[in-house]
Amino acid sequence: MSILVVGSVAFDTVHTPFSKAERVLGGSASYFSVSASFFSPVRLVAVVGEDFPNDYIEILKMRKIDISGLTIAKGKTFFWEGRYELDFNNPKSISTCLNVFSNFSPFIPSTYKNSKYVFLANISPYLQEKVLEQVNKPRLIASDTMNYWIDNEKEALVRLLKKVDIFFLNEMEAKKLTEENNLVKAGNRILKFGPKKIVIKRGEYGAILFSSDSKFYIPAFLLDNVVDPTGAGDTFAGGFMGYLASKKRLSESIFKEALIYGTIMASFIVEDFSLNRLLSIKKADISERIKEFKKLTSV
Amino acid sequence: MSILVVGSVAFDTVHTPFSKAERVLGGSASYFSVSASFFSPVRLVAVVGEDFPNDYIEILKMRKIDISGLTIAKGKTFFWEGRYELDFNNPKSISTCLNVFSNFSPFIPSTYKNSKYVFLANISPYLQEKVLEQVNKPRLIASDTMNYWIDNEKEALVRLLKKVDIFFLNEMEAKKLTEENNLVKAGNRILKFGPKKIVIKRGEYGAILFSSDSKFYIPAFLLDNVVDPTGAGDTFAGGFMGYLASKKRLSESIFKEALIYGTIMASFIVEDFSLNRLLSIKKADISERIKEFKKLTSV
Repeated sequence: MSILVVGSVAFDTVHTPFSKAERVLGGSASYFSVSASFFSPVRLVAVVGEDFPNDYIEILKMRKIDISGLTIAKGKTFFWEGRYELDFNNPKSISTCLNVFSNFSPFIPSTYKNSKYVFLANISPYLQEKVLEQVNKPRLIASDTMNYWIDNEKEALVRLLKKVDIFFLNEMEAKKLTEENNLVKAGNRILKFGPKKIVIKRGEYGAILFSSDSKFYIPAFLLDNVVDPTGAGDTFAGGFMGYLASKKRLSESIFKEALIYGTIMASFIVEDFSLNRLLSIKKADISERIKEFKKLTSV
Repeated sequence: MSILVVGSVAFDTVHTPFSKAERVLGGSASYFSVSASFFSPVRLVAVVGEDFPNDYIEILKMRKIDISGLTIAKGKTFFWEGRYELDFNNPKSISTCLNVFSNFSPFIPSTYKNSKYVFLANISPYLQEKVLEQVNKPRLIASDTMNYWIDNEKEALVRLLKKVDIFFLNEMEAKKLTEENNLVKAGNRILKFGPKKIVIKRGEYGAILFSSDSKFYIPAFLLDNVVDPTGAGDTFAGGFMGYLASKKRLSESIFKEALIYGTIMASFIVEDFSLNRLLSIKKADISERIKEFKKLTSV
C-alpha cells in the first residue's frame, strides 16, 4: 500500500571529524522516501527551490517515488549545515536557511488523498495537522518531531498526537516532552497524549516500541565504520513504515519486525554521506543484514 | 563450581536526587558475591576494618558466601561517598577513603586455591596479578577494571589481560583503553590484548558480549523506578559468572544466557540502595524476570 510522506527535501553540508560533504541531498522526506521505497510505493509532498538540481530529482525518480507532490517554488532550497564531533551524537548546527521552506504549506494532490499510510515527518505540528485535514481516512498515521517543536509549539504538538497512531521520537525528546527523566514513565505519559504506539529512538543504543500492552526493545546494529549519522532517524522511520505498508495485515509481531527493519535501514544510511549507501544496496543486502542482526541478538 | 572473588567490601554513602543512604554495605566484592551466590558457591577475599559491623558480615553469611578469606584489619573500612545527578550516570565522588584497603595485599586461603572460577574485581592490576599467582589453574579467569587503572596503570593492566579469559568493562573504559572512539574497533583491539571474550557494559542501554568469532548484543531491562545504580556493574558480573559456574559445560549459548543473567541481576540491584533489593528476592523472581526480558526482546 502507498505511503504519503510530507517533510523537507534539502541541501545538507555536513562536517565530521574525518570528512565533509557539501550541498548533498538531504531533508527528512528524502531520507524517509528512499528508505521506505525498498518496501512500498511512496508519495512525496515537499518543496524545493529553483536551484534544486535535476540529478537529485532523478535519484527520487530512480527509486520510483511519486514526486507529483514535489513543488518547485521561486527561491532557494532549504539548506542545513552542521558539524559532528567524535562521538557522532547531536550535531552542532552551523546554519539553517529555511528559504522556500519558510512558506511551505503542504498541498496534498488528489491522487495522494487515498494513501493508506501517512508519515508526517519533522515539520511544524500546524502543518502536520493541515496534512491530516486533506487525506481520506488513512489506515495508519505516523508522525515525527524535534526538540524545537517541543520547546515552541508543545500545545499544537500534543493536540496533533490525539490523531496519530504511531509517534516517532528520540529518547531526549521523550524526556523533554514529558518533563520526566525516567524513560518508561515518559513513554507511558506520551501514550496518554493519544498515540497507540510510540517508537523511541536511542541512536547507537537501539530502539523501543512502546504501547500500553506491549513493549519491544532492540539494540542497534553496531558498525565499525560510521561516516555520517544525518538522516538516520528518518531512514529508520522509512524502513519501519515501508515494511508495515508492505503487509496485508498488521499484527504485534509485524510491528516488532518493522522495528528491526527500521534499525537495519538506519544502519546502512550512516555508512556514507547523504543517501549514497542506501542508493548502492539491493533488497538482498537488507535481508542479509536482518539475518545477521537476528543472529547477533539471539541466544 | 566455586567462584573466588577478590575485591572491596566497603561502606557507601550515596546521594541521589530523590534520596540518600548512609554507610550502607557496598564494595565490588560485596555486590559480586551476593549476586553470584544465587547460582554458585562464592569464596570471598577482601579486607575490612574493625568498625565493620557484624550485621553486614551476617548478610554475607546468610547468602552462604565463604568469608574465610575476609580479613578484619586494624583501622577503618574502605569508605566511599558519591552523588548521582538526575540522569543516574557516573556519580560524582565526594570522598574515597581507602583506609585499611590501602594496605590490602590479597592472601588466598589454601581452601580457595582450587577455585575453578576466579573474578578479579576492580582493584589494582598488580593486586589482580598477585591473586593469579596464588591459584591453581582455574578453569576461567575474569577481571574488571576502572578508568583510574587505565589512566595510571595501563601497562600492568594490559599485561594482566594476557592471563584473563573474560574482561568486563564499560563502554567509556573500552574507548579510553584503546584510544578508539568506535566501539566495535575498540572491542576488536581489546581482544588482541589477550582476553578470549569481553563484556562491554552500557548501563541502561544494555551489554555486548564480544569475541573474535561471535558477538551478542542485548538491551537493558528498563525500569520505571531506579533508586541507586551503585554496584550495578559488579552485580552484573556476579550474575554472569555465577550462572557460568553453575553449568557443567560452557558453550556459546551458555555465555549468551550468562549475559542475560547479568543484565537481570543488575536490574534488581538498582531498584533500591545497597544490596537491599537483591536480599529481598528469591530465585523464582530471577526466573520470572528472565522470562519477561526474553518476551520484551523477542519478535
